[in-house]
Amino acid sequence: MRSKGFDGMVCSIAGVLAAIGDRWGLLILRDLCFGISRYDDFRMSSGVTNATLSDRLKHLEANGLIERHLYQSNPPRYEYLLSEKGRGIAPVLAMLAELGDCWGVSGATEPPLMFVNRKSGAPVRWMPIDQDTDEQLSTTDVLIKEGPGADDLIRWRLSCANSSKEVGGKLAARSGAVSKPAKRQFNFR
Amino acid sequence: MRSKGFDGMVCSIAGVLAAIGDRWGLLILRDLCFGISRYDDFRMSSGVTNATLSDRLKHLEANGLIERHLYQSNPPRYEYLLSEKGRGIAPVLAMLAELGDCWGVSGATEPPLMFVNRKSGAPVRWMPIDQDTDEQLSTTDVLIKEGPGADDLIRWRLSCANSSKEVGGKLAARSGAVSKPAKRQFNFR
Repeated sequence: MRSKGFDGMVCSIAGVLAAIGDRWGLLILRDLCFGISRYDDFRMSSGVTNATLSDRLKHLEANGLIERHLYQSNPPRYEYLLSEKGRGIAPVLAMLAELGDCWGVSGATEPPLMFVNRKSGAPVRWMPIDQDTDEQLSTTDVLIKEGPGADDLIRWRLSCANSSKEVGGKLAARSGAVSKPAKRQFNFR
Repeated sequence: MRSKGFDGMVCSIAGVLAAIGDRWGLLILRDLCFGISRYDDFRMSSGVTNATLSDRLKHLEANGLIERHLYQSNPPRYEYLLSEKGRGIAPVLAMLAELGDCWGVSGATEPPLMFVNRKSGAPVRWMPIDQDTDEQLSTTDVLIKEGPGADDLIRWRLSCANSSKEVGGKLAARSGAVSKPAKRQFNFR
């Protein structure tokens, strides 16, 4: 079963997790990024069971991340492709792969995959870029702040760094007592 | 229950997912990035149940992503902090938040959170950077290729774009018939 319980949470991260479904959903998206498109190939790639694969493909399609296409009519056979929306996951997967190599959890002693510059062959990493100046930043140059869609719970989370020793302060913050926009470090290295 | 079945898979992405545990594990890491550190505050932030929270904190600690510290001795009370290793998740979470806003799944009509340049206040996005030249690339400039830790299954996945209409070709590739290193587009936009 896909986990439940994210309904009603105002959080872009939780929203992506709900749209993907679970870890199997993300591995199916990984395989789609590789160009894998057919049911039996998803099974072969990840060892996912029929029941789980069938459920997750429906879930990803219902969330607009993949599209189902008939590629053979007698008997009918379908293939699955990333939608334009779904393709947005590729950079996240690249960053997860880089992190997995850094954490030493790939299951191999050296990186199984590498992301390189098409023209030079040089290794590529994802870094924060200032959208106004194109300046390349370090992660410690990046702050998180509340956006126009923030709710009280997000403002409370943002306030936690400043009041982490006062439960009363945090509860007050959650009930709306924090008036000025919160802005802080997001524990980037 | 956390999902099982990733054991033995050579994949840095699957390795990260296994270390995190599940979606609740990732939301706990999100809250740790905000500076939330105490049990009751994790409960308040995500609505996670006691059983799930307790299990996921143990899992994250066992995987070296968080550290438990005694902050009060009578009665003993613990707080949880990201380890140096665990802090590596912050840029992934930032990218997921950006993607959730793009997908329109945040639960709000406008972005709940924004990532900005500490100095200028300008919005920040994560982009691929050539590690040799510091050149900023577009995602379509990035290729994926096999690394030194690739196994036959990874080489087979990399070969899928070129042989997606020939099941025989794919099976041959999986059994080791692909000799030259595979390199291809990873479905970046």
